Amino acid sequence: MLVVMNKNATSEDIQRVSEFLEAKGFEARVSYGEARILVHAIGVKDVDQRDFELLPGVNEVLRVTTSYKLAARVSQGCDTVVEVNGVKFGDKHAGLIAGPCTIESYNQIDATAQELKDSNVKIIRGGAFKPRTSPYAFQGMGEEGLKIIRSVADNHGMAVVSEIMDASQLDIFMKYVDVLQVGARNMQNFNLLKELGKIHRPVILKRGLSATYEEWLMSAEYIMAGGNNQVILCERGIRTFEKFTRNTLDLSAIPVIKKLSHLPIIIDPSHATGLRDKVEPMSRAAIAAGCDGLIIEVHHNPDCAMCDGAQSLYPWQYDLLYKQIKQIAPIVGKEII
Amino acid sequence: MLVVMNKNATSEDIQRVSEFLEAKGFEARVSYGEARILVHAIGVKDVDQRDFELLPGVNEVLRVTTSYKLAARVSQGCDTVVEVNGVKFGDKHAGLIAGPCTIESYNQIDATAQELKDSNVKIIRGGAFKPRTSPYAFQGMGEEGLKIIRSVADNHGMAVVSEIMDASQLDIFMKYVDVLQVGARNMQNFNLLKELGKIHRPVILKRGLSATYEEWLMSAEYIMAGGNNQVILCERGIRTFEKFTRNTLDLSAIPVIKKLSHLPIIIDPSHATGLRDKVEPMSRAAIAAGCDGLIIEVHHNPDCAMCDGAQSLYPWQYDLLYKQIKQIAPIVGKEII
Amino acid sequence: MLVVMNKNATSEDIQRVSEFLEAKGFEARVSYGEARILVHAIGVKDVDQRDFELLPGVNEVLRVTTSYKLAARVSQGCDTVVEVNGVKFGDKHAGLIAGPCTIESYNQIDATAQELKDSNVKIIRGGAFKPRTSPYAFQGMGEEGLKIIRSVADNHGMAVVSEIMDASQLDIFMKYVDVLQVGARNMQNFNLLKELGKIHRPVILKRGLSATYEEWLMSAEYIMAGGNNQVILCERGIRTFEKFTRNTLDLSAIPVIKKLSHLPIIIDPSHATGLRDKVEPMSRAAIAAGCDGLIIEVHHNPDCAMCDGAQSLYPWQYDLLYKQIKQIAPIVGKEII
Amino acid sequence: MLVVMNKNATSEDIQRVSEFLEAKGFEARVSYGEARILVHAIGVKDVDQRDFELLPGVNEVLRVTTSYKLAARVSQGCDTVVEVNGVKFGDKHAGLIAGPCTIESYNQIDATAQELKDSNVKIIRGGAFKPRTSPYAFQGMGEEGLKIIRSVADNHGMAVVSEIMDASQLDIFMKYVDVLQVGARNMQNFNLLKELGKIHRPVILKRGLSATYEEWLMSAEYIMAGGNNQVILCERGIRTFEKFTRNTLDLSAIPVIKKLSHLPIIIDPSHATGLRDKVEPMSRAAIAAGCDGLIIEVHHNPDCAMCDGAQSLYPWQYDLLYKQIKQIAPIVGKEII
Repeated sequence: MLVVMNKNATSEDIQRVSEFLEAKGFEARVSYGEARILVHAIGVKDVDQRDFELLPGVNEVLRVTTSYKLAARVSQGCDTVVEVNGVKFGDKHAGLIAGPCTIESYNQIDATAQELKDSNVKIIRGGAFKPRTSPYAFQGMGEEGLKIIRSVADNHGMAVVSEIMDASQLDIFMKYVDVLQVGARNMQNFNLLKELGKIHRPVILKRGLSATYEEWLMSAEYIMAGGNNQVILCERGIRTFEKFTRNTLDLSAIPVIKKLSHLPIIIDPSHATGLRDKVEPMSRAAIAAGCDGLIIEVHHNPDCAMCDGAQSLYPWQYDLLYKQIKQIAPIVGKEII
Repeated sequence: MLVVMNKNATSEDIQRVSEFLEAKGFEARVSYGEARILVHAIGVKDVDQRDFELLPGVNEVLRVTTSYKLAARVSQGCDTVVEVNGVKFGDKHAGLIAGPCTIESYNQIDATAQELKDSNVKIIRGGAFKPRTSPYAFQGMGEEGLKIIRSVADNHGMAVVSEIMDASQLDIFMKYVDVLQVGARNMQNFNLLKELGKIHRPVILKRGLSATYEEWLMSAEYIMAGGNNQVILCERGIRTFEKFTRNTLDLSAIPVIKKLSHLPIIIDPSHATGLRDKVEPMSRAAIAAGCDGLIIEVHHNPDCAMCDGAQSLYPWQYDLLYKQIKQIAPIVGKEII
Repeated sequence: MLVVMNKNATSEDIQRVSEFLEAKGFEARVSYGEARILVHAIGVKDVDQRDFELLPGVNEVLRVTTSYKLAARVSQGCDTVVEVNGVKFGDKHAGLIAGPCTIESYNQIDATAQELKDSNVKIIRGGAFKPRTSPYAFQGMGEEGLKIIRSVADNHGMAVVSEIMDASQLDIFMKYVDVLQVGARNMQNFNLLKELGKIHRPVILKRGLSATYEEWLMSAEYIMAGGNNQVILCERGIRTFEKFTRNTLDLSAIPVIKKLSHLPIIIDPSHATGLRDKVEPMSRAAIAAGCDGLIIEVHHNPDCAMCDGAQSLYPWQYDLLYKQIKQIAPIVGKEII
Repeated sequence: MLVVMNKNATSEDIQRVSEFLEAKGFEARVSYGEARILVHAIGVKDVDQRDFELLPGVNEVLRVTTSYKLAARVSQGCDTVVEVNGVKFGDKHAGLIAGPCTIESYNQIDATAQELKDSNVKIIRGGAFKPRTSPYAFQGMGEEGLKIIRSVADNHGMAVVSEIMDASQLDIFMKYVDVLQVGARNMQNFNLLKELGKIHRPVILKRGLSATYEEWLMSAEYIMAGGNNQVILCERGIRTFEKFTRNTLDLSAIPVIKKLSHLPIIIDPSHATGLRDKVEPMSRAAIAAGCDGLIIEVHHNPDCAMCDGAQSLYPWQYDLLYKQIKQIAPIVGKEII
C-alpha cells in the first residue's frame, strides 16, 4: 500500500500516517518527490485504505497488491487446462458447449442433442433451475429436467453443463451434472462459491453484469481457496448505457484475463447479444481474439422455445458457425476438435 | 405488446406477424401510420418480444405493460407505511436506522447503542454475515453476532436490522432480527427472495449495483407475490464510469420510485459514497428530495472499526446530522421522530 | 509517478525501468516491499505511463500527481466567488439562474422575465444557438435571439446567460451575453475553451455526459490557463445504464468537487432529469447537499414551449421552489438572495 | 408516436390526449387492450414526447420512428462503399489505415511510411491538431504537420487521414488531407458536422465515448443532410465502469450498425484498448465480426513516440497482423487488398 501525501503536508502529518501504519503492522518508509511525498507501507495486511485517505495531509492511497493469489498468473508457470469429456479449455485449446437455454422435455433435449452430435458437440448445456427476473415467469423443470438431460447426454456420449442457483441444490447437481455453471447474478453469492470450492468438478463462473475483472477473479479465488482449481471464467456481456443489444460483450476481457490469470476464459455470445443474428459474428470474433471456448445456445426449434428462443441458433446455423470457427482457430494458434 | 413494422413491410409480413401473435393467444389489431405500421397485440401473455423482432418486416417490438403488479402504484390507493418499533417509513414519515457496519463485540455494539440512544435512534443495524469480495477478509461473527445485537437492542428498547445472505440462514434470523436486509449483491437471489415472501417481517431490499428501477421492483414483486407486503426499497448507489466515489448515489430514484410504486424508499448514503465526509451532505439531500428514511453507518470509534470505518460517522456527527435533517424534513412535508 | 513491479521481477527488469525513467528526466528510487517492488519516479514530467506498463516485470504504473494546477483547491487559500449582477456563486452563497430552454420570441422572453422578476430572479437564461441531436430539429434563433434576451434583460435589470457552441460565435456573444455557458457536448471542445480563456466574463462549464471529475477540472484548467478565473462548474447529469430519467444526476459531485477545487459548483436539475416533476425534489436536494447555485428551466407557458417544455417549470412552481430552498439554504450554511 | 395510457385512465384523459395530439397536427387513433389503452399518433412531426408523458392517465410514450433518414438502411438498396486511393470500405471490402498517432517530424513520418509500404498500406494516418485533455500537453504541429504528411504520402503513393478539430481548420484540411476524421469528443460538434456536409471528401466519424448507436447515426445524418454521403463510421470504444482497458471496445456495433444503416463501419482498436498487446487480438476479432476496415496506430519507433506510443504497434507487428487478418477476411466473405 502506498500513501500519497500532499506536497504541503506537515511533518506532523507524515508522522501521524507512519504511526498509524505501524499500528496496523506495516513498516513505513517515506520518499520525498518533487510534487508529492510518498509513504510506502511495507507488509501485506488486510486493511481498508480509506482509513488512511481521511488523515490530514493525505492526497490518496493506492493499493499495489492484488487480492487474488491462486487465480493470479504469477501463481503458476503455465495455463490451466480444464478437460471435460475429451474437450479441452485453455492453453492451445478452445472447447465448445452447445444446447438450449432451458430443458423443456425429453423430446426437445433429445432432438437437439441428435442435431448437435452431427456438429461434433461433446458437451450439452440446458437449464433446469432458471433465474427469472419475474416471479410469474417459468422457473424451470428442476430435478426432473436434470434427469432428462443426464439421460439424453448418456445416450449420446455427451457431458452435461447446467446452472446451479443455490448451495441447497448441490446434492442434486452432483448426481446429474458434470460442469456446474454459476450465473452472472450469482457471481458474488459467496455461500454458493464456498460450497463449489469443496467439490471436484469444473465450474463455469460467469462474470456479473457490472463486475470488474478484479471482482471476477476474486470470486474465482473463493472457489479455488476451497481447493477446487477447475474454474472456467465466462464473459457474457456487461451492462452499459447502450441498450440496443441486451448487454455489451466485452471481448477485451480475453487478452486482459490472459494477462492477469492462468485460468481459461470462454465467451457466451448468446446472452451477451440476445439476438440470434449477432451470435454468429460475435462467436467468430471471440475465437479470433484467442478465447478458450464458447458456450452457445442452440435449440432444435427456436421458434417454439419456452425461453430465449430469439437468441438460440438453429442447428444448421450452429453447424455453419462451427465450420467457420474451425478455420479461424488455427490462425490464432488454437485447436478446436 | 406492440409490433412496429417497417413502412415497406409487405402484407405477407403483416399477416405472418398477426398469425404468430394469434398462435401465442393474442388478438392482433393493425393500425397504419404515415411512417410505420403498428400491430397491437391485445392480451396479457408471458412471451419473449424478441421472437417477434426476428420476423421479416418488423422494425422493433415494444412492451406496453409492466411486469410488476403488486408493487405498482396503481395496485393500491395509498402509500405503504412500514412501522418498526414506533418508527414509520412511507407516506408522510421518514424513518432512521443507524449502527455499525459489522458486529465486532458486545462492548462495541453496546457503546454504539448507548450513543445512538441519545440521538433518539430506535432501530439499530449491524452485520453478522458479511458479503466480502475477498475470501481472505473477515466474514462476520455469524449467529454469535446476532445474539449480541439482539441482547443490546433489548436493553435499549431498540429493533434490529441485519443482512441475510442465504435462505439457509432464515431460521437464525427469525430468532434475533426484526427487519431483514437483502444486500445489493443478492437483489436477484431469487431463492432468498421467495423465502422472504413467506415470513411476516419487514424486508429492506437494496438495489443491485446495476439494477434498473424495473428489475428492482420485480425483485420486490418476488417477495410480495409470496404474501409479504412489508418491503422497503433502499437505494445505495449504482455503478457508473465515475470511480471517485465508491458508487454513484442515484437520488432521482426517490421521485421516480414514488411515481411507479407505493412502497417506501430509503437511502443508504454510507455505502453509496464510501467516505464519511460525503455521508452528511448526501443524507441531507436525500431528505430534501423526499425519501422515506435513511440507513446510516455509525460506529462509536470508527478509527478502530473492523470494516468500513472510513464511511462510518462518529456519534457526534450523527447527532449533528440528525438535527439538520429534522429541520429539513417538514419543509418537504415529512416528519422525523 | 510510481512503477509497481512484480515480486519476481529480476534485477535486470528493475534496472531497465530505472534507466528508462532517467532517460525521461526522472530520478529513480527503488523501494522493496513484501509483495511488490516500487520504483518511485522523482520529478514532474509529461510522460505516458503506459510506456512503462509494457516493460518486463512491471505490474502497473500509478500516477501520484494531478494534471490540473490552477483549478486545484491547494492552489489558493479560499473559495472562488463569482459575482454576476449582485448574485454570488461560491463560499457561503448559492446563486439562482432561471429562464426558458430556448429563446422563441420577444413576447415569450418578456412574459417569462416578468414572472421571474416576482421571484427575485436576477439572471435569466435562454438559448439562441441550440445543439440538437437531429439536423432536422429547430436550431435556435441565432443572433436575433440574443438581441431579444439582451433587450428584455435590460428592461428588467437582469443579467443574461446563454450557451456558446463554437469559437466563431464569440464576437456576437461578447455583444449581448454576460455569462457564457459551455454545454456538456462541448466540454472538451478545446478550441472553444482556449478562446474563453482570453475573455473576462464568467463561464459556466457543464460536465460532459461521461466526463470524470478530473477531465472536467482539466477543461476548467484550459480556461484558467488562458487567464480567465471566473469558471463556474455545472453538474447536469451523467450517462448511466439507467434510462428512466434522461440522465443520472450525480449530486455527490458537490462534496467531491468542493474537496478537489476552489471553484463554485452549480446544478442543472432540468437537463439532468428531463421531467418537470423531478426538477423540484432534485433542486431541493442539491441545495441541501451544499451546492453553490442552480440553473433551472422556467417557461411562462411550458405546454407551448418549442423545446424541452416537459422539463420546464411553470412560474408558480418556480416560486414555490424558491421559497422552499430559501428555507433549506441556511440549515447548510448558505445564503440565497 | 404511441401514447400508452393506464388501464384506469378516464375517457376525459383519453380525450385530452387525443385533442393535444390533434393540436400538434397528428391524427389520433385509440385502441383498447386488456391491460393498456393505446393512442396511436398518425403522422410524422417533430414533437417532444415528454409533453405527453406529463398528461394525466398516461403511462409512457413510445417513439416508433427513427430520426435518421439518409443514414438508415431502408433509404437505399445496397451498402455504401467508400473508395480512397484504391482501397474500399463497405460491402465485401475491408480497408486498412495505419500510421502514427501524431505527426512529430518529417523523418518520423517518412520512416513509418517506408515500413508501412512494405505491408501494402495505401492510406496513412497522423494527427496535426491534437485534442489533449490537458492544456499543458503537446497540442500537435498544426499546418506544418499536415504539410509533412502530405509530402511523404505523395512520395509513397498514399492517401492521408487526419483529424479536424474545428470548422475554422477546414480550409487547411482541404489543402492537404484526403479523408477528414472527426474525433470522439467532436461527434456532436454540430457546427463542424454541418461544414463537413458541404465538402466532397470522405469523413470518418468516430463514435462518442458515451454515444448511443442512434446518436451516432444522427451525427452522420448531419453530414449527409448537407450533401456529403461519404461517411465512414468508426467504433473506438465506449466508456463503461471497467477501467482496466482505456475504453470498452463494443464490437457488437458491427452487426448492429450493419442492420440499421448502409454506411461502412470500421474499428479503431488502438484507442479502444490503449495498449499494444490488446490491439492485435481486437483487430482480428473485428475482422472476424465482419467490419469494413481498421484504423491502427503504427510508429516506426513506438518507444520514442511523443504521444500514445504504448498503443502503437511496431511495424513488424503490423505486418504479422496484416497477414493474419488477410487469412480471416475471406472466411467471413470479405476482401482485404
